[in-house]
Amino acid sequence: MATHFYTASSLDGFIATSDHSLEWLFQQDFDMEGPMAYPAFAEGIGALVMGSSTYEWLLRSGGPWAYAQPTWVFTHRQLSVPEGADVRFVRDDVGNAFPEIDASANGRDVWVVGGGDLAGQFADAGHLDEVWVQYAPVTLGSGQPLFPREQQLELVDVARNRDFVCARYRVG
Amino acid sequence: MATHFYTASSLDGFIATSDHSLEWLFQQDFDMEGPMAYPAFAEGIGALVMGSSTYEWLLRSGGPWAYAQPTWVFTHRQLSVPEGADVRFVRDDVGNAFPEIDASANGRDVWVVGGGDLAGQFADAGHLDEVWVQYAPVTLGSGQPLFPREQQLELVDVARNRDFVCARYRVG
Repeated sequence: MATHFYTASSLDGFIATSDHSLEWLFQQDFDMEGPMAYPAFAEGIGALVMGSSTYEWLLRSGGPWAYAQPTWVFTHRQLSVPEGADVRFVRDDVGNAFPEIDASANGRDVWVVGGGDLAGQFADAGHLDEVWVQYAPVTLGSGQPLFPREQQLELVDVARNRDFVCARYRVG
Repeated sequence: MATHFYTASSLDGFIATSDHSLEWLFQQDFDMEGPMAYPAFAEGIGALVMGSSTYEWLLRSGGPWAYAQPTWVFTHRQLSVPEGADVRFVRDDVGNAFPEIDASANGRDVWVVGGGDLAGQFADAGHLDEVWVQYAPVTLGSGQPLFPREQQLELVDVARNRDFVCARYRVG
């Protein structure tokens, strides 16, 4: 059982524009059956974790809720929950909340969806095992930071997936 | 003949710390005979271009001047020149300066060493052909930005070189 930060990024280390847009990302070509693609990754995931910006982006993007797993949202605000979704709001810090999140994954892995600072809080608390980045072939110049921390990692794997450079790291 | 921005970067898109340190970079393992390594790249280079921060970092790092090629430094300041170095200071903008830089490369390629904004100015002026990034397995959280622009690129090549993810892009 491990906790992964799995995310796309611009070449220059932004996971979204300043106003949380991912339009630049969805214009690029990615093979969902290819290396380090989302479907294979998601098979091992027992629980999702995200901040409120990521959660609200998912709500806005419309369509039915895509996740059967428990989804933990770190926020101090009151947010709506889509029908049938197992969404659990957390006001506690990562260290205190982790045992319950981990237990809810039921023997499978935990996916920190975003943002970068929340992933950093998991690292600070000693609960982040891997960072997976899919680099889109675009620079943004500004936006939401990938991982606002100083952190040494260890490169595990590299692959090309169409327009993307995919890299997988172990947290030191 | 082409102009390349060839640089190392942290995972999160910084080419140096805020105070221009590269200590985090030199701790990582890189094979100089391996894919996308510097010696093979440098063989094709006829002229170097850099901003004053990069130039002053090279001066501070000591030792004899490493480049036989003409080195163009974009700066409005008066800076010293190491013995035997062919250093040419430029106060003009990239568009105006480019023909002379290009001619000085004598049929070989131009290397924009850094910083990221100068590389961006080459792109703005239509004089940047390729971006090569060697990602070190480290995040910095802040520092000198890789490429402070919105720019779509085209992925040409991906390789692993020991601790590094190396990617080569064509400028769209």
